[in-house]
Amino acid sequence: MTAPSTYLASVGTCLPGDPVDNATLAELVGVDESWADVFIGNTSRYLSLDLATGQVRHTLADLAATAADRALVEAGLEPYEIDCVVMGTATPDQLMPATVNLVADRLGIDNVPTYQLQSGCAGAVQAMDVARTLLLAERCRTVLVIGGDVCAKHLETDFEPGARTSAELVNYVLFGDGAGAAVLSGEAVGQGIEIRQVFNRLVGLGREPGQVVDWFGLGDRHSDRIAVHEDYKAIEETVPALAQQMFWELLEDLGWGADEVDFLLPPQLSGRMSDRISVGLPAPDARRINVVRHVGNNGNALPFLQLAELLRQWQGPGRAVAIAVESSKWIKSGIALERS
Amino acid sequence: MTAPSTYLASVGTCLPGDPVDNATLAELVGVDESWADVFIGNTSRYLSLDLATGQVRHTLADLAATAADRALVEAGLEPYEIDCVVMGTATPDQLMPATVNLVADRLGIDNVPTYQLQSGCAGAVQAMDVARTLLLAERCRTVLVIGGDVCAKHLETDFEPGARTSAELVNYVLFGDGAGAAVLSGEAVGQGIEIRQVFNRLVGLGREPGQVVDWFGLGDRHSDRIAVHEDYKAIEETVPALAQQMFWELLEDLGWGADEVDFLLPPQLSGRMSDRISVGLPAPDARRINVVRHVGNNGNALPFLQLAELLRQWQGPGRAVAIAVESSKWIKSGIALERS
Repeated sequence: MTAPSTYLASVGTCLPGDPVDNATLAELVGVDESWADVFIGNTSRYLSLDLATGQVRHTLADLAATAADRALVEAGLEPYEIDCVVMGTATPDQLMPATVNLVADRLGIDNVPTYQLQSGCAGAVQAMDVARTLLLAERCRTVLVIGGDVCAKHLETDFEPGARTSAELVNYVLFGDGAGAAVLSGEAVGQGIEIRQVFNRLVGLGREPGQVVDWFGLGDRHSDRIAVHEDYKAIEETVPALAQQMFWELLEDLGWGADEVDFLLPPQLSGRMSDRISVGLPAPDARRINVVRHVGNNGNALPFLQLAELLRQWQGPGRAVAIAVESSKWIKSGIALERS
Repeated sequence: MTAPSTYLASVGTCLPGDPVDNATLAELVGVDESWADVFIGNTSRYLSLDLATGQVRHTLADLAATAADRALVEAGLEPYEIDCVVMGTATPDQLMPATVNLVADRLGIDNVPTYQLQSGCAGAVQAMDVARTLLLAERCRTVLVIGGDVCAKHLETDFEPGARTSAELVNYVLFGDGAGAAVLSGEAVGQGIEIRQVFNRLVGLGREPGQVVDWFGLGDRHSDRIAVHEDYKAIEETVPALAQQMFWELLEDLGWGADEVDFLLPPQLSGRMSDRISVGLPAPDARRINVVRHVGNNGNALPFLQLAELLRQWQGPGRAVAIAVESSKWIKSGIALERS
């Protein structure tokens, strides 16, 4: 038998408020503007938290519902036509209910399976992988996939500019908030972009985590533990290598040549890192789609923001490869798209 | 074409330490022993937290790895024979890495997809649903499914007996810690128990959440918000009704009569609630498998503990129905098993 085909029907995105530039971060939290430019390479990001007042203006459910609604409108679908919702996030609004279920409620989606993956930078690909599997098993015809992160709970605002070390300030420069969504379909709707392959594999055996994000409950929230740790040296060494592996694995699986890739969506760690990884991926004719420099690292939202930009630029037939690498316990993932 | 069949190859479980009875809760945290017996109906539970010292002795990864290892041994499988790991939990050790990836590392599982579902009482069924879909799509031949919860972060131990209200004390009586695992296979291995159906559906549209569990990050952990809320009235009203719906939906889908069910695994909210729901499910000849009275409500672990007890009792051909209802944003779920 021939496996059913799966298609990317639409993409929707949502970024909170106005972009926050490095000059604003310098003023409000004491970030060195030129250091942010050089060290991270991000020029702006969008935050649910109002840095001036400490007020949280948008939850993850807010952003995710808006992005999902836009994806539904773009696909020309009503909520009752969605057979399943799959969401990826590292920063759910609450542990329970899973945020995906609050989003479904706002959209008017009911009586279908919903899944929320606890995931980092590879989460959007993981969610698409689950969604595509539901289509391949012919359990669903249309799946709504959502990804997003809101890092408000991990940012402190009650400090004087100049009181923080660069290790603490880097998170303000690096991260951002946002959400994205896509409709996946078993039929060639929308622009007729076929999802040719999705790979997603843990490769963490014996490797120390490159990123750790903790949470606190009722009992331990007054401890002095730091919640967020990154091993930037491990990330800088390992992510480019895993990105290259995934690039070649996808090409080999599909029998594509590197010179046949028209669009390349590289991992989006930071403006500087993504440019460096992008250069190392040998796709000579591929247009690179980087967004992290302007939107910040908003985790599970990023691949959707790249896909939205891809759909804007993509005219006529061609091939696109997207790669995401999660440095927490090391996951390499990728998507191959084709329009005939 | 005929859809591939899926089988429950093995089950493994892990409960931390010795059972904690109500007399011990009375002594250490000021619970009224007879009130615990009557109001909740749980006589014991297992806790990762040593209530006497406040020390956390087991993480979720500890319990999950032990349960998973037992399931692998029971199935006679080596780690490299596992094609995917799917885990459900409401209480991951950390937000990143997802606990499933730390468990995979301990088991020696690598280079496969892993998924961690953020989920409550329906989480074990959701995880089995994803695993079964991977088998049905013929993407995998053997999937390791894990569920577990550790509520140590939600329990305070630094208080005097008698200083807490019953609303605060109820969580000590109600909840427990534990993990379970199962191997699902596309072939009739183990006892040859076929997974005939898995249903799992959000039914939360317009319904207020019955259970909310919050988490705190770096920025908001010093707030005075309470992390855990339950609407017991809504739970008592809604869970029995949703359990009955799921019971009939499974039977109708498979063409089974209520008198053809040999084993019934009802929702495991508390000893008292589960007995009440069990009585309301019209399976006249079914042996009921309740475990919550002795192990406490350990969330994503409970259905595995029921399945382990089922496998101990089940001799010869027959049919079994398991039902789980999540009261967070209201999910009804169920599994139908058959041995010929």
